[in-house]
Parts: sequence; C-alpha cells; structure tokens
Amino acid sequence: MRQRLLEATVQCLAEHGWSGTSTTLISQVAGVSRGAQLHHFPTKNDLVVAAVEHLAGVRRDELSAAAAALPEGPGRTRAVLQMLGEHFTSDVFAAALDLWVAARSDEALLAALVPFERVTGRETHKLTVEMLDADESQPGARELVQATLDLIRGLGLANTISNDDARRARILDRWAAVLEDELPRRNKENP
Amino acid sequence: MRQRLLEATVQCLAEHGWSGTSTTLISQVAGVSRGAQLHHFPTKNDLVVAAVEHLAGVRRDELSAAAAALPEGPGRTRAVLQMLGEHFTSDVFAAALDLWVAARSDEALLAALVPFERVTGRETHKLTVEMLDADESQPGARELVQATLDLIRGLGLANTISNDDARRARILDRWAAVLEDELPRRNKENP
Repeated sequence: MRQRLLEATVQCLAEHGWSGTSTTLISQVAGVSRGAQLHHFPTKNDLVVAAVEHLAGVRRDELSAAAAALPEGPGRTRAVLQMLGEHFTSDVFAAALDLWVAARSDEALLAALVPFERVTGRETHKLTVEMLDADESQPGARELVQATLDLIRGLGLANTISNDDARRARILDRWAAVLEDELPRRNKENP
Repeated sequence: MRQRLLEATVQCLAEHGWSGTSTTLISQVAGVSRGAQLHHFPTKNDLVVAAVEHLAGVRRDELSAAAAALPEGPGRTRAVLQMLGEHFTSDVFAAALDLWVAARSDEALLAALVPFERVTGRETHKLTVEMLDADESQPGARELVQATLDLIRGLGLANTISNDDARRARILDRWAAVLEDELPRRNKENP
C-alpha cells in the first residue's frame, strides 16, 4: 500500500505538477483510503520525503537497466547519449523537474530534495563515466562528463513544452563526435 | 501602471513561482488597486499573455546589453559563455523556468508561452552565433551552437536548488576549449 501511494505520487507529479498534487488526489489515484494514507504518511511532509526518495530510486533503477542494455563497439558513445536523452525526457524526469522548480519556493521540499539530488547526481555521474569509459585521471575529462549531463538536462528541459526529438537527435550526433575527439578513455581501443 | 503590473508579475514569478502567484499578490506588489489591475488585464489569461511577452522582452534586452559589453580578443569565447551562464542563472531565467514547468499542466499558459519561446530561442541562437562568430555554413557548427545553449540551460537548472558557481565555472572553461577546437568561425583569425 505504501508502494502504491508512492507510485501514485510520482504519477500525480508528472501529470499535474507539484502545485496540482494534493494528498487527496494521491489517495484517489492510489485507490487508498484517507485513513490508510494518514497511517503511512501522517503529514504531507512525510509523503514528500518518501516520494522524493522513491523517485530517486526509480530514476536509479531506470538508468541502471538502460545502461546494462547498451551495445559495445563503435556506436557506443552515441548509444549512451541516446539512452541518457531518453531518460531525461521521460515522465520520471518531468516529475523530478517539477519538484526542483517547486523547491525554490518551498523550504520543506527543498530540505528533502537537496540531499537526494546530490546522491542522484553523483551516481548518474559515476554511471556515465563507466558507460563512456572516461579516464577521469586526465585533465578536463571530468568536466566533459559533467557538461554531457548538463547538456542532456538542458535538452530534457527544452522537451517539456514541445516535442524536440528531431533537434535533440542532431545535437546528440554532434556531441558524440565531440566526445570522440575530446574525451580521454581508459581503454585506448575505445573511440 | 501597466508596466508596474508586468514588472510585479515577473518579480512574483521569480520569488513565489507560478503556483504562488495570484492576481491579488501581483496587485499588492505593484501597489496598484484591483480595479486598476482589472482595467488593464480583465482576465488572468490577459495578464499571463502580457507577462510572458514582457518577460521575453526583458530577457532579450538583458542579453543584448550584455552582448554589447563583451571584450574582443583571445578571451572572447570564455566571456561569451560567462555572460550566457549569468543570464541563465538570473532571476529572470528562474521566472521563465517556472512558467515552462507550470505550462506542462496549464493549457492557457502553454498556448501563450510556446510562440514566445520559439521567438526567444531563435533570437538567442542568432545572437550566440554572432557573439561566437560561428560559421553556420560549415557542417556541425549550428548543432554546436545549439548544444552550447542547451548546456547552459542545463547549468541554469542545476543552479536553481543550490549554488553551483564553482562547478559551472570549471565546466565553462572546458567548454570554451572545446569550442576553440571544434567550432568553425567566419573570421579565421578567431578565436
């Protein structure tokens, strides 16, 4: 039941945003009585903290599963960017984005969010280093991986108000070429 | 008075977000009576459309003024990125970001926003091409300018929930070096 409430929270965030997500709506979407909801999450803040934690877990699982499915070989860099691009334009990203923006004017939400974002950011960075086989002992490699993730976050944002698939594909083609020129790799046989 | 109402709207958006911005709050911040407000903007939608238009104008003026103050010479690429980074972490960007996210679940706002975002995006791209002296007749140049702006939008987003100045500076240093390697320029003496 806890799980159903958390999934309903993420779904409500993706569809209605933070401002349109009330505890009443969540209990309706989850098909859970108000009493049962209050048993699991006595205050809205409890639900927020649990939802942020759940969302971080969903993002991590989604990324790990996609990373495991990546091909090896010459198209790998572009495939990594494709997979990250899909992750950062998903409903799960839209829900996270909504929380980020709402947290600017909601202190309880901000306090819950910042530690999870730090961990999620660190994990996503580490996974990207592994996927790209980046050699972070070389100068500039770390910043190029960071730039890749910030680019993809920016592309995720651009996709929120209109379908940006075609433009994003061309930009990621170009970015893959930049990484092939500029990013030091651990295994020198990689492009 | 119209101008004061529009400025108050942008200020409220930056401070309280779209969900915390009511027409009552705007009239209070502007120091304008409800009657006068209703005279200028009979419906909330009228105010939204005018505020989006005003915000687009503020963003354009801010960018143009900053572009005119850029230095020439070897540090120019990095200075362009610095200036864009400052623009996309300003209160004006925060207000625009809030509208983007809110528009996902508000059709009237979305309908007002999309045409202005299209124009603003096109103008910002054109200005960036000029500032960087990019030669868009060369393959990949256009996508590299787009990637630069999406990267900076992503950095703006990263800055919303915590101060990201130091990390952003390192990433922009690295990106300036990439552009110097990869971006075709019109005047071959650049960068």
